Amino acid sequence: MNVLEWNRYGKARVRLLKARRARQPHELVDLTIDVQVEGAFEPVYTEGDNRLCLATDTMKNTVYAFAREHLVGPVESFGLVLARHFAAFDQCESARVSIDEHRWVRMPTDDGEAPDAFLRSADFTRTATVTATSDGVAIEAGIRDLAVMKTGRSAFRGFPRDDYTTLPEADDRIMATLLTASWRYGEAVHGANFDELFDAVGETILDAFADHDSASVQASIWVVGRAVLERHPEVDEIRMTLPNLHHWLVDLSPFGQPNEGEIFVATREPFGLIEATVRRGD
Amino acid sequence: MNVLEWNRYGKARVRLLKARRARQPHELVDLTIDVQVEGAFEPVYTEGDNRLCLATDTMKNTVYAFAREHLVGPVESFGLVLARHFAAFDQCESARVSIDEHRWVRMPTDDGEAPDAFLRSADFTRTATVTATSDGVAIEAGIRDLAVMKTGRSAFRGFPRDDYTTLPEADDRIMATLLTASWRYGEAVHGANFDELFDAVGETILDAFADHDSASVQASIWVVGRAVLERHPEVDEIRMTLPNLHHWLVDLSPFGQPNEGEIFVATREPFGLIEATVRRGD
Amino acid sequence: MNVLEWNRYGKARVRLLKARRARQPHELVDLTIDVQVEGAFEPVYTEGDNRLCLATDTMKNTVYAFAREHLVGPVESFGLVLARHFAAFDQCESARVSIDEHRWVRMPTDDGEAPDAFLRSADFTRTATVTATSDGVAIEAGIRDLAVMKTGRSAFRGFPRDDYTTLPEADDRIMATLLTASWRYGEAVHGANFDELFDAVGETILDAFADHDSASVQASIWVVGRAVLERHPEVDEIRMTLPNLHHWLVDLSPFGQPNEGEIFVATREPFGLIEATVRRGD
Amino acid sequence: MNVLEWNRYGKARVRLLKARRARQPHELVDLTIDVQVEGAFEPVYTEGDNRLCLATDTMKNTVYAFAREHLVGPVESFGLVLARHFAAFDQCESARVSIDEHRWVRMPTDDGEAPDAFLRSADFTRTATVTATSDGVAIEAGIRDLAVMKTGRSAFRGFPRDDYTTLPEADDRIMATLLTASWRYGEAVHGANFDELFDAVGETILDAFADHDSASVQASIWVVGRAVLERHPEVDEIRMTLPNLHHWLVDLSPFGQPNEGEIFVATREPFGLIEATVRRGD
Repeated sequence: MNVLEWNRYGKARVRLLKARRARQPHELVDLTIDVQVEGAFEPVYTEGDNRLCLATDTMKNTVYAFAREHLVGPVESFGLVLARHFAAFDQCESARVSIDEHRWVRMPTDDGEAPDAFLRSADFTRTATVTATSDGVAIEAGIRDLAVMKTGRSAFRGFPRDDYTTLPEADDRIMATLLTASWRYGEAVHGANFDELFDAVGETILDAFADHDSASVQASIWVVGRAVLERHPEVDEIRMTLPNLHHWLVDLSPFGQPNEGEIFVATREPFGLIEATVRRGD
Repeated sequence: MNVLEWNRYGKARVRLLKARRARQPHELVDLTIDVQVEGAFEPVYTEGDNRLCLATDTMKNTVYAFAREHLVGPVESFGLVLARHFAAFDQCESARVSIDEHRWVRMPTDDGEAPDAFLRSADFTRTATVTATSDGVAIEAGIRDLAVMKTGRSAFRGFPRDDYTTLPEADDRIMATLLTASWRYGEAVHGANFDELFDAVGETILDAFADHDSASVQASIWVVGRAVLERHPEVDEIRMTLPNLHHWLVDLSPFGQPNEGEIFVATREPFGLIEATVRRGD
Repeated sequence: MNVLEWNRYGKARVRLLKARRARQPHELVDLTIDVQVEGAFEPVYTEGDNRLCLATDTMKNTVYAFAREHLVGPVESFGLVLARHFAAFDQCESARVSIDEHRWVRMPTDDGEAPDAFLRSADFTRTATVTATSDGVAIEAGIRDLAVMKTGRSAFRGFPRDDYTTLPEADDRIMATLLTASWRYGEAVHGANFDELFDAVGETILDAFADHDSASVQASIWVVGRAVLERHPEVDEIRMTLPNLHHWLVDLSPFGQPNEGEIFVATREPFGLIEATVRRGD
Repeated sequence: MNVLEWNRYGKARVRLLKARRARQPHELVDLTIDVQVEGAFEPVYTEGDNRLCLATDTMKNTVYAFAREHLVGPVESFGLVLARHFAAFDQCESARVSIDEHRWVRMPTDDGEAPDAFLRSADFTRTATVTATSDGVAIEAGIRDLAVMKTGRSAFRGFPRDDYTTLPEADDRIMATLLTASWRYGEAVHGANFDELFDAVGETILDAFADHDSASVQASIWVVGRAVLERHPEVDEIRMTLPNLHHWLVDLSPFGQPNEGEIFVATREPFGLIEATVRRGD
């Protein structure tokens, strides 16, 4: 006797551009949206009974249809409307809407910012995830793939040495990462402006990253996560994923040159991968 | 008061080639390995105390050092040795070793298979994940990104229609996916040959995929998952992730042509995303 | 006074699946097609005069409309029909149609090959490029991204050493590449079956690659290219692009182990990049 | 009798980070460098004679060794030193050094810009290509993959309609592209500051893109290219490659909604691909 232990389905990568061209200057919102639902959908799987199976094509249509009326403010608000809509379907226990926002800024020109031309601000992707269940909603905001680097005040010392350890202790290593962070808002977020809050948390992350002395990537996660919780009562929890993108000092001695922490080879693989969740205590 | 709720770290994408050239013909193993550990590493994060922080560089070295002696059979066995080694470290509660095997086959030539030349068999990546804890080990094997397609006996009918539904019912749609599956071995696996078992499960997946009438991607997951559990007592559970890579019928009527299920546009996004876990019942 | 020195435009990545389901077993063709035209299109650029500007959307439609009737044999033949069609437009001096064929094979099952299920054969992409001009047509066929490796009989010795040379001479290095080759057919191809010819040239490439002693990637290109020209009078010229994907011996001495050409780290970047064209002499 | 018609080889994707940490604030240069040489290297290919074959590993070492002393100003200058060095080798007829510059900016914090922390400015990649031959050097600078969009004043009308044309004329289409441009400096560049010039040309590109009424992507290339030549006497020629990344209006009528140029689906493939070179006339 086999059992459907767990199931989830939905539509991934719905690409939506909303151009508000009745306004001057034009406004632009560029999103990639995933919708995923979980629930008591067993008959869809085990019986081939589609009566409960909201088509993923319908999910896609819904995103476009809702965008005209409901996509007017922060992406978190749009995610909320969508997540509640899908969670209300029969047998649906939870609906999760994940949004990537690709940010565009008005194009700088000799005459100031253009009213109808844009360039993409690609330093990072802003993310938002809203999950609706019968218990309520959870709202997360985040940043994905922001490349950051510390060229000073990054050390890695005092780690254990076994038969396979060759890494020297370092006082002044380069620490580079592609920062991905996602934070969950708590009750205190009610009434807040999600756009302002996103910007504020982003600034805290940069500020804490730049400001601290790092003993390890692990320690940096804690420092940055704690700073977010301390400065932003709206945030209950933050998760970070930091690949440690190694930069190795090039041995220039065969060429008769010193290399005092100046010339490095940047590498993509392998990389350290450090993840943690820091939450507000009780 | 903030809390380190969860943490995990390790080394990702350690690229290892083992060429056994003392043998005739040569043998080749090409792996990408991730090592991740979880445990009571709080002081590493919150105190910057690295005394418990096994360096990820040491993890990488260990992989290469162990490869010479221990990488002699199936990748699951190598994963087992590595996972147990890392799980034995202080404060480590679990160590997970994930391996991608890139398969090479001896190159076909006029004179038969070459003894020292290979071509990569790229239809899919074989995966293995071994997790070691104080309770024992869990071994999973899998397939990633195998592109498969059903051109017959794939329907999608009887799904609910709401205000946003436009998808017509289909009796003969193209069903294409990039199949990713991962199955967990149970007690019955002891003494089994992991390579033979991998091949056998793979054959079952293909056989079930080709053989069944599909009512939906969801139903196909169930059919394939159940087949694996029924034919392979060594498997306790299987998880599948199936993107539904849509192929839309091109409207040729503007060009005065019929199109009876023959000419399609293949799309990459958006896609349906269907996931489920099927397990052996009690 | 500025001049439009050169121009080219077209549609890229038209994704086409043709499923011939009236046949038993089903047949499947999966192509990605690029169309590019060059010609006296200056007014389109300099005057904004679109009267000569065949829309790239029309190119896309044409590909789908032609597929129903004309995509019946080798991709080279389909490319020929398309290239001649586009080259016949006003002001068009040349039309180039480039096709990637994604190969699918019937799915193996317990009962033999499935009639209506397929898996993608992903070892390489088959390519074809047809260029039509008023002078006639040029037909090229090719292979892209076939991963191949020599574990024996690959050396690199006797190269010059300057102040920046540290690479040791090697007698038994691993030589791995992602082979891309493109060959141009000459007059002798008339009446040939392009599918059989593609397979035959592909076999020659593998055979020559496996069979020879390599003095360098450069020397291997010559050996393989010459073999193709010698065995296939239909081919006038062959161009190859071979990244040298380095595999570096891991230094296991810190761990008290020898490493006699057995354990390697596979790398992606940097890589050597060797390209050459070998043609039939007069 | 077969002939080596053409050959080129070198090292691709040498990843170099230079961190000037003796300065306050720190300075950072992050480059990916390709070196390619062409010349009379036939014996390397046809005879397996490596006496003329400068190892690509030596090229890589040279890049790192030169970086310490010579990477002090604009990337064009570094490319020049490298290209001349490689062009001086025996039998080398031309040496081309292509550099991607990944731009980092000092991290903004509460206390101003950090002296030792950076974030990557990822809107585009700055490129430079220097080619040295016995005749002299050619210097090109460029921009790669800058996403830009016009939401106003972009039309496509008056194009020819044949049996396969379905595209409606458009007065207010969205025009989005991933702009890649490369411009060649002429004699007038001597004494110029390559960094300032790069910024100035980049501003002209944005300014012209934002400012003009577009009749087609082709016409936009001409407008932008001409603006660069008119404003920058240092530039002799500019080549642009502009994919036309289509945004299709979503049909909301099934949902009882109008869609007056507001809600679009963003697509990745197929795309129009428009390329041209505009040069200064005589």
